[in-house]
Amino acid sequence: MERIKRLLDLMDEKAFSAYLLTSSENLYYFTGFKGEGMAVIMADGSVKLYTLPLYYESAVLYTIQGIDVIKTKTQDMFKEELMDELGKLVGDIGFDYMDAETFWKMTSKLRFLHLTPSSDLVWKLRSIKDEKELESIAKAAAICDVGMEVASDIISPGVTEHDIKVELTEELLRCGADRVAFDIIVASGTKSSLPHGGLGNRQLQDGDVVVIDLGASVNEYSADVTRTFFVGDKVQEKIEKVYKVVEEAKNLAEEHMMAWVSASSVDRVARQLIETNGLIEYFVHSLGHGIGLSVHEPPRMSPNSKDLLAENMVVTCEPGVYIPKQFGVRLEDTLLIKKDGVVRLSKAPFYPYIP
Amino acid sequence: MERIKRLLDLMDEKAFSAYLLTSSENLYYFTGFKGEGMAVIMADGSVKLYTLPLYYESAVLYTIQGIDVIKTKTQDMFKEELMDELGKLVGDIGFDYMDAETFWKMTSKLRFLHLTPSSDLVWKLRSIKDEKELESIAKAAAICDVGMEVASDIISPGVTEHDIKVELTEELLRCGADRVAFDIIVASGTKSSLPHGGLGNRQLQDGDVVVIDLGASVNEYSADVTRTFFVGDKVQEKIEKVYKVVEEAKNLAEEHMMAWVSASSVDRVARQLIETNGLIEYFVHSLGHGIGLSVHEPPRMSPNSKDLLAENMVVTCEPGVYIPKQFGVRLEDTLLIKKDGVVRLSKAPFYPYIP
Repeated sequence: MERIKRLLDLMDEKAFSAYLLTSSENLYYFTGFKGEGMAVIMADGSVKLYTLPLYYESAVLYTIQGIDVIKTKTQDMFKEELMDELGKLVGDIGFDYMDAETFWKMTSKLRFLHLTPSSDLVWKLRSIKDEKELESIAKAAAICDVGMEVASDIISPGVTEHDIKVELTEELLRCGADRVAFDIIVASGTKSSLPHGGLGNRQLQDGDVVVIDLGASVNEYSADVTRTFFVGDKVQEKIEKVYKVVEEAKNLAEEHMMAWVSASSVDRVARQLIETNGLIEYFVHSLGHGIGLSVHEPPRMSPNSKDLLAENMVVTCEPGVYIPKQFGVRLEDTLLIKKDGVVRLSKAPFYPYIP
Repeated sequence: MERIKRLLDLMDEKAFSAYLLTSSENLYYFTGFKGEGMAVIMADGSVKLYTLPLYYESAVLYTIQGIDVIKTKTQDMFKEELMDELGKLVGDIGFDYMDAETFWKMTSKLRFLHLTPSSDLVWKLRSIKDEKELESIAKAAAICDVGMEVASDIISPGVTEHDIKVELTEELLRCGADRVAFDIIVASGTKSSLPHGGLGNRQLQDGDVVVIDLGASVNEYSADVTRTFFVGDKVQEKIEKVYKVVEEAKNLAEEHMMAWVSASSVDRVARQLIETNGLIEYFVHSLGHGIGLSVHEPPRMSPNSKDLLAENMVVTCEPGVYIPKQFGVRLEDTLLIKKDGVVRLSKAPFYPYIP
């Protein structure tokens, strides 16, 4: 209940009379239950978890002590029973996520209440990782490293993008990942200029750039790593130049990362170096993101981010340059923020050349 | 633009002045673009796709002709530009999905408009599959069949649930699945009593029930299949009895499935047979769901469903009985609804005994 106690403190600051958890990751984080449902945390500290018959046994088995697990008949009943419960309250109720339709219905039924989207409360807690969470992410990162080693072994002319994806998926699972964190991206040739690789399956050719972006999950926590490879020993000068700029931007940004630094300033450091090299129009995304139970979570390292880095946050740093219809280069590691710097949790070397 | 034309007809029935598509599957279905963004379909037939720089090249490459692709600077800009566009309209605007926070902000800015959740328009189109969609789903189903054959080969005492998951994931990908449709469920022993299998990794033992639920995706379309196996040649009588009830319920329900039949009545047929056998409290979910670009989509085959079956819908039929702390049995196939019956797209035999 330690995490719920901390959430109660944050609810208190906002004077919420209750808080609703609906996202399955938040349910897992606060209650230990993995499935669909809604947890209602009252300001007095009592917690009820509403779930469907489908998940009830699992909820009883895995939900931490002190939480009342309630089986509801159907999705609709679940909302109605919840309405009765909430109807007794007054004031503001916070929630993490809700779709517009549910929000609309709840708002029109609960006239004396004010439903307030406030996922920031949850992120304040989830963005700082404890020892056990860090251990899982470090394991996931080590598995990603093995994946990249295998990638460097199998990349060669004639192999298809799908072949590589199959081998890497298998490798991550065999190394002990519970699952791949996302569908592995293998983007070769001109398709490497698309950050997510585009559609279809392509056979690797001599001279190709190959961007591989993979993630492993261990105990529900993910790590995320990207490497860019070149097929053959003759790399075009232009590609090599871009690679070096991306590598330099990444190193520079990582040097600036530590607790109390603003996420936007770290993004700026990388962006300025890429701009100085005349490539800024090709850096089409933000520098990185927090990672944990979600692959993309706060803090956001983007130009407009309001987030501050803090000790024991885990983030990615992934500058990229994508020249349309030609090629792209991205390098990404999963990093732990410490008081005065970062620790790279993923340690795969940069293997640029595949002869 | 054929699909958009049909959506325009449905918009016309509701007198919508515009319709917003936000879900990535809907964007793919109507525009060919795979990524994040928002498409605005005006009643006059003009279509604009707003997307971030990250996805812009990909959007230009894959979006069908006749759609205006607009690159927006950041997520916020994207909403602001959209607001300007929508601000010119009057009347009702439909949308597929939106989170409560976005809905709240849009509603408060667009005072002369009425934003109406109406994903039903999209589902009316998506639930009926065309020839090309059916071909992809049939391929995915055939791959699932191979997966089940492999499962029957490798299930044996001493193998872990994770080992099986790794082998099956690999097999589905090697057979040409673009990806697994969802994290494969391997639930053995008492864990089979949890429909989703619970947490942790378990070693198979003689006498175990093993529920395997897997899905393959081909060209973004999925098939979903479940089989229940027994380890060893001595199956407890109680388990065998439950298995036969589930099998009979499945067969009976499938006999009732055809165009114009209500989804709830099909659910009822299966539910009544399970009830007659005194097991109804252990059938803790609905009978099945539509499948396509989403693994779970309309029609819903549940007691409260308002859906009617129609020709060229693709659905699962998956009755299950779960005896808490003992065992569970589920059987599931992916089926094509025809005028006067169903065609099983997945054809894996029921392999109950693994000696």
